[in-house]
Amino acid sequence: MKIIRDPEKISIETGKNKQLKKRIGFVPTMGALHPGHFSLISRARKENDIVAVSIFVNPAQFGKGEDFKKYPRRFKQDIESCRRLGVDLVFLPDRDNMYPEGYSTFVNVDNLSDCLCGASRPGHFRGVATVVAKLLNILHPDALYLGQKDAQQAIIISRMVKDLNFPVKVKVLPTVRQEDGLALSSRNAYLNKQERSVALVLSKALRLAETLIRNGQRNCGRIISRMRQLIEKNRPAKIDYIAIIDPEQLKELRKIEPGCLIALAVKIGKVRLIDNTVIGRV
Amino acid sequence: MKIIRDPEKISIETGKNKQLKKRIGFVPTMGALHPGHFSLISRARKENDIVAVSIFVNPAQFGKGEDFKKYPRRFKQDIESCRRLGVDLVFLPDRDNMYPEGYSTFVNVDNLSDCLCGASRPGHFRGVATVVAKLLNILHPDALYLGQKDAQQAIIISRMVKDLNFPVKVKVLPTVRQEDGLALSSRNAYLNKQERSVALVLSKALRLAETLIRNGQRNCGRIISRMRQLIEKNRPAKIDYIAIIDPEQLKELRKIEPGCLIALAVKIGKVRLIDNTVIGRV
Repeated sequence: MKIIRDPEKISIETGKNKQLKKRIGFVPTMGALHPGHFSLISRARKENDIVAVSIFVNPAQFGKGEDFKKYPRRFKQDIESCRRLGVDLVFLPDRDNMYPEGYSTFVNVDNLSDCLCGASRPGHFRGVATVVAKLLNILHPDALYLGQKDAQQAIIISRMVKDLNFPVKVKVLPTVRQEDGLALSSRNAYLNKQERSVALVLSKALRLAETLIRNGQRNCGRIISRMRQLIEKNRPAKIDYIAIIDPEQLKELRKIEPGCLIALAVKIGKVRLIDNTVIGRV
Repeated sequence: MKIIRDPEKISIETGKNKQLKKRIGFVPTMGALHPGHFSLISRARKENDIVAVSIFVNPAQFGKGEDFKKYPRRFKQDIESCRRLGVDLVFLPDRDNMYPEGYSTFVNVDNLSDCLCGASRPGHFRGVATVVAKLLNILHPDALYLGQKDAQQAIIISRMVKDLNFPVKVKVLPTVRQEDGLALSSRNAYLNKQERSVALVLSKALRLAETLIRNGQRNCGRIISRMRQLIEKNRPAKIDYIAIIDPEQLKELRKIEPGCLIALAVKIGKVRLIDNTVIGRV
């Protein structure tokens, strides 16, 4: 496994592999790797000749007052995980490599970036789209692996890849959960014991919505209202948003449709968590 | 010479050539090709195995009330020019291929895009950066050929290529002029005979600036003032801007520096023309 910090050097490395017609799978991460990331890496391992993982806490996607500084950094442990999972290339750039002085270019996916998580985190998805555009140009992978847990991110990246004609296939893999239902997230590390237990309201609210739909409820307002009730019973949970939307344009729906997305963000104390579920047939 | 309209098809074509280690040179154009474009194509022909030219009147770079609809379209003649100059691939997409329904992604080069031409043409450079990002991803050339006549465009594209890590070398070639000094532009076709003669004020003002500098003038304000006087004598010439700037950040300079750019935009009747000169040693 090679660990490379310099964008040009890793480009040469992946370029050589492409010239040999090797298929490259790529998993972009901010590190603090957990089994959610592992599932992306394992799938990439199965489907490609070369697996590249980037570990970069991307300053451009953090707003002022957000947790950029305290975001968990465990690079040594992350590198060990990559080695164990059979990764070939770890890209570990530093900030100056990625955003040198005078840096000015940003990619924005209009319409999809200012709602839901984008409403509470202005500029967040601009930072995400920009760094992924850069990483795709640096590594030119054949396949890009993303997690469904960050549903809006996956939708925005897929849109960007299509719109800007990036020659890469986007694969979105299911959310990995702990046994009790909590979606894995590097930010779970911020939760104390009591908050960890309250954090279950996100997945519980989603299961409630699924049950209501299974029992015939189609009115999105009523479903959201029931989810809201469930969450508000649990202090210190504070709802940021609950939305039922179509998965292409992220427009709020009035009635449940096949393929619709139920997404929510809840603050548990100071920790903002997100989760979602895709409704299949109805 | 192959003429291809479909982005995926031309990607396959250039991909095959890259696999054979052929070097690809690319000239993006909006058609209405003139000897300025020919010089880019000829240089690309000399320096590469494969030469690709795109012809696409890009709606994203025209503002409301601008000349998108009446922009000269002479595709048949352009294709003949390409054939004569030994082009291998002409990419001739239509609007729906490039901006299908739901299109949402735009590339913006902050700081450089809102001054000079960007001040009179809001969104123009966003459209330019976006279409070039798309074309680079579709054609993945090794070298990109741009004209110095559109100096701000060349600076913005160079910045974007660097910032977003596009694996392409940008080459900016000198402005081609008619014998009397008028910089070639597809928009010159809009000028009537009297306007054509007045249009000479742009290059004349630049030559005046060069002479002043050669004679020791270093004060940018005074140089601009002399250029202004010269232009204002000529009706119907109306100055949009005259600026002396550094060629990286486009900041206005107070004193002439080596490598600085003198750029201007002037409306001759309804036709907006631009020109510029780079000051070498001083």
